[in-house]
Amino acid sequence: MSVTNLVKTAAFAAVFIATTATLADDQPPLDDATIETARTLRDAALEEDTAYNLLESLTTEVGPRLAGSPQEQVAIDWAVAKFKSLGFDKVYTEPVQVPRWERLSEHARVVSPFAQSLRVTALGKSAATPVGGVTAEIVHYATFEDLQAADTADIEGKIVFISNRMKRHIAGRGYGPAVQARGRGASEAARKGALALVIRSIGTDSHRMPHTGGVNYAADIPRIAAAALSNPDADQLERILKRGKPVTLHLDIQTKDHGMVEMANVIGEITGTTFPDDVVILGSHLDSWDLGTGAIDDGAGVAITMAAADLIKRMAPRPKRTIRVVLFSAEEVGLVGARQYAERHKDNLKHLIIGAESDFGAGPVWALASKVRPDATFVVDKMAQIMGALGVVRADRVAGGGPDVGQLGRMGMPVIDMMQNGNQYFDLHHTADDTFDKVKPEDMRQNVAAWAVFTYMAADWTGIF
Amino acid sequence: MSVTNLVKTAAFAAVFIATTATLADDQPPLDDATIETARTLRDAALEEDTAYNLLESLTTEVGPRLAGSPQEQVAIDWAVAKFKSLGFDKVYTEPVQVPRWERLSEHARVVSPFAQSLRVTALGKSAATPVGGVTAEIVHYATFEDLQAADTADIEGKIVFISNRMKRHIAGRGYGPAVQARGRGASEAARKGALALVIRSIGTDSHRMPHTGGVNYAADIPRIAAAALSNPDADQLERILKRGKPVTLHLDIQTKDHGMVEMANVIGEITGTTFPDDVVILGSHLDSWDLGTGAIDDGAGVAITMAAADLIKRMAPRPKRTIRVVLFSAEEVGLVGARQYAERHKDNLKHLIIGAESDFGAGPVWALASKVRPDATFVVDKMAQIMGALGVVRADRVAGGGPDVGQLGRMGMPVIDMMQNGNQYFDLHHTADDTFDKVKPEDMRQNVAAWAVFTYMAADWTGIF
Repeated sequence: MSVTNLVKTAAFAAVFIATTATLADDQPPLDDATIETARTLRDAALEEDTAYNLLESLTTEVGPRLAGSPQEQVAIDWAVAKFKSLGFDKVYTEPVQVPRWERLSEHARVVSPFAQSLRVTALGKSAATPVGGVTAEIVHYATFEDLQAADTADIEGKIVFISNRMKRHIAGRGYGPAVQARGRGASEAARKGALALVIRSIGTDSHRMPHTGGVNYAADIPRIAAAALSNPDADQLERILKRGKPVTLHLDIQTKDHGMVEMANVIGEITGTTFPDDVVILGSHLDSWDLGTGAIDDGAGVAITMAAADLIKRMAPRPKRTIRVVLFSAEEVGLVGARQYAERHKDNLKHLIIGAESDFGAGPVWALASKVRPDATFVVDKMAQIMGALGVVRADRVAGGGPDVGQLGRMGMPVIDMMQNGNQYFDLHHTADDTFDKVKPEDMRQNVAAWAVFTYMAADWTGIF
Repeated sequence: MSVTNLVKTAAFAAVFIATTATLADDQPPLDDATIETARTLRDAALEEDTAYNLLESLTTEVGPRLAGSPQEQVAIDWAVAKFKSLGFDKVYTEPVQVPRWERLSEHARVVSPFAQSLRVTALGKSAATPVGGVTAEIVHYATFEDLQAADTADIEGKIVFISNRMKRHIAGRGYGPAVQARGRGASEAARKGALALVIRSIGTDSHRMPHTGGVNYAADIPRIAAAALSNPDADQLERILKRGKPVTLHLDIQTKDHGMVEMANVIGEITGTTFPDDVVILGSHLDSWDLGTGAIDDGAGVAITMAAADLIKRMAPRPKRTIRVVLFSAEEVGLVGARQYAERHKDNLKHLIIGAESDFGAGPVWALASKVRPDATFVVDKMAQIMGALGVVRADRVAGGGPDVGQLGRMGMPVIDMMQNGNQYFDLHHTADDTFDKVKPEDMRQNVAAWAVFTYMAADWTGIF
């Protein structure tokens, strides 16, 4: 790219992005060829269903694939075979030590005053109740904070019920406040002598589909069973409680801890031409919860990142740097594969040029956020400009990198967030309803188009993010 | 009403209803007072939530109430107490002999080629599989008719899968064609040597909520277990079958027949002033399937008809004829309460002036159909005209009276259909998702308003329908 072109590009970007950084002298420009290829890839992605078909294959032929279960191994074998059949340059696995937890059975019913069953699911990694279950009076708190403020005398020997309802938000901002009840409720309740915890599902739907998701037990506190009611069942329990009479619940949660097993992160690479040791990381996770088939969480991310790299391999000149698609193991049970990946690769950080993660469902990308050096911002601005035709805007927040790739981001690796519309994500997240029929092929195409633009430009530019 | 008024009324109606019948000399006119009161009741109904609150009470305090179960008796006690507390003039029950069937457990899983669980529910009154379940190859038919046309050699020793998908329609017209698979599939499959039947749920949703509903066994054919997959699970099974390999399913359905038990139809009356022995019947059914709390099927109908009669009792001059609200027992398992009601009252048919039923959910009434004498049509036309402000049109079809009240309709009792918008009805019908949170208070008000108009005008007019 000539100096004239460089000035033109910067001026053009400034029209769209008021915050475009001044270019430093020591960063190379974006080549015209890189930009043209990114545009071509974007348009080509909208014409094919590679990601949608990969997702159909994963959810149909593997189905649920709980971390550490035999089904996660089936998924690993599926991924290795798919990378190979797609013709990736390198396909390999790296071992991950994974805790294996298993859901055996789960039942809840109101014993009095109005006897009836409730739909419940054990939270992930929940302890079991004693065999045969527990029967006790309910003590009800609106939020986790109310439970924190409560007296032990009100809780001892009872079942704690936290009823906070998650709010809908395009970027999922309702999740953080509500999920405290799921993550921390059990130990807080147990600390005060509760026999078990039930929460309102952390989800935005109104179907009788309880949402699972990990519980975190504090080290020094007895582990009590923790379970989620579906939103309609939590509504029902609240209505029953409103009558003002004592409410007795029977809860029977049976689960099993199998200890540690060996699984693997699965990696497929498209080797760079000029700087093959420099890597752009596309992350997602291969495990899912056991209730659904993990279509939106995170089969979609697996399919989108595989398809974006595959598209580049088939339809573009090889980029200068390597594209590495990493399918992490055991995200749901504590970012297990990603933490071990970061630990394993921490001494090679300077070669991990930039990374991004697809783990927010199958909704379209609507914004692009970044955490890069100021003098690399112009590259991200140009990515966003090319994605503009897909309905993507440049976000004014700092990227985090997602739960898995964010582990490397914390260590200093630059990251991009390809922010997806999550308005419907928490209707399905962690439920049995997370299935292939919920995914729209056109949204998968749009995601691949945006990812191909980011991936190709990040891998073909030779500057420092 | 004077002759002048009568002419005016007929002319006015003719503007709106082209088919207004010529009045016969022997039918009395509609009194102005009757019409004015109907309008007043219509408007008053939109200002209160009696029906919504009754529905909240029934679904919360009773919950699921399967025909013949102890919970149906709880519902009967609830209804008697509610009628009394509302101050109905007469409250009584009539015994009904009900077959009691119980769902014990239900599991389905694909054994090969892609091992995974499927969400399934036993059809109502289904036989059990042998203890431990059956494992067999699937043989797939797109429709019941395809099963009828199939050879025994293809079916013997296998599990039959019928995958027809119900179409959405405001009046539920997709139900009839699709439900053949549920009602008749088991005996047709068993006749050809099948071990069990699984069908795609007869429902319009895409949630992992299988739809139950009655199966009818032919008398001379072995009774095999019959179950429904949710729509997403049926999609999944179809995708697996499309791979072209043999698919083996494990199906374990445990159910129990308890024989006959005594339940009751519950009746509340507002006694007429001039012709107390002449009765307008408002029907609905008190039982529900066991999976949900029967909010739309048929708690809504119970609440709407009770509230319409209650409104008239509180806010209008007593009508000349008696209003009889009948909450039928055991509709879901074969119109049991309604058939016994019709048998019991068949010799009193001339005093059953007209009837209608609310059993199509909690959507708004959008059309009014009738089966009355031509010289009574003007009364129904006037009802429709007054309901016009509620968005109700006069339907151009002949009314059937609904499943329960239709039993009397078949014997010759005139009937009205208060046709509800059923576009969403089959998303929830017969599933665990049939719960109170799905019902909109404004729709309940609109229903009561329309029902109050029909009920008051039918009970206060003194002609023959």
